[in-house]
Amino acid sequence: MIEPQRTPATGVLKVSAQSNPNSVAGALAGVLRERSSCELQAIGAGATNQAVKAVAIARSYLQASQLDLTCVPEFTDVEIDGNVRTAIRLLVERRTLHGAA
Amino acid sequence: MIEPQRTPATGVLKVSAQSNPNSVAGALAGVLRERSSCELQAIGAGATNQAVKAVAIARSYLQASQLDLTCVPEFTDVEIDGNVRTAIRLLVERRTLHGAA
Repeated sequence: MIEPQRTPATGVLKVSAQSNPNSVAGALAGVLRERSSCELQAIGAGATNQAVKAVAIARSYLQASQLDLTCVPEFTDVEIDGNVRTAIRLLVERRTLHGAA
Repeated sequence: MIEPQRTPATGVLKVSAQSNPNSVAGALAGVLRERSSCELQAIGAGATNQAVKAVAIARSYLQASQLDLTCVPEFTDVEIDGNVRTAIRLLVERRTLHGAA
């Protein structure tokens, strides 16, 4: 999966090791211009790395809009093909630059 | 490196792919009981993954103290053996649970 897969109902962006961080960052920035938070979900070290890079890149995309991002990581179990895997979920929250959250 | 290497002057915890996330989380929680923020530095996907897991674990360690953590990822260049490498720096900030940041 190159492009982030988005579940519209929950607003979760699923990130894989093959995801392009710039594409994920663009999707993330788009969501966070409209909403105050968004979730990234990643399974495995490669995917988690791409997700974190995407957040770092999205911060630069949102800087012109005077917005910054913070993220809160947590573990979550997801079922894939009948197997339970531990995923990292990053709750990404928007905050105003040079201001309190 | 199994244990996180701490640079006392700057308070940066260096995380590698071989770091134990529980150990890093313990060090992180210890710093954040005393200070409002701490930095984790990771180079490569494996190290970044361990750093993110450490933040997720540290959140559970600090829950009893009514503290929660957020992190702000950014890219940074570090010089190792004369070569410039791009690292991920996670600025981990403390916030009070059930309250504004």
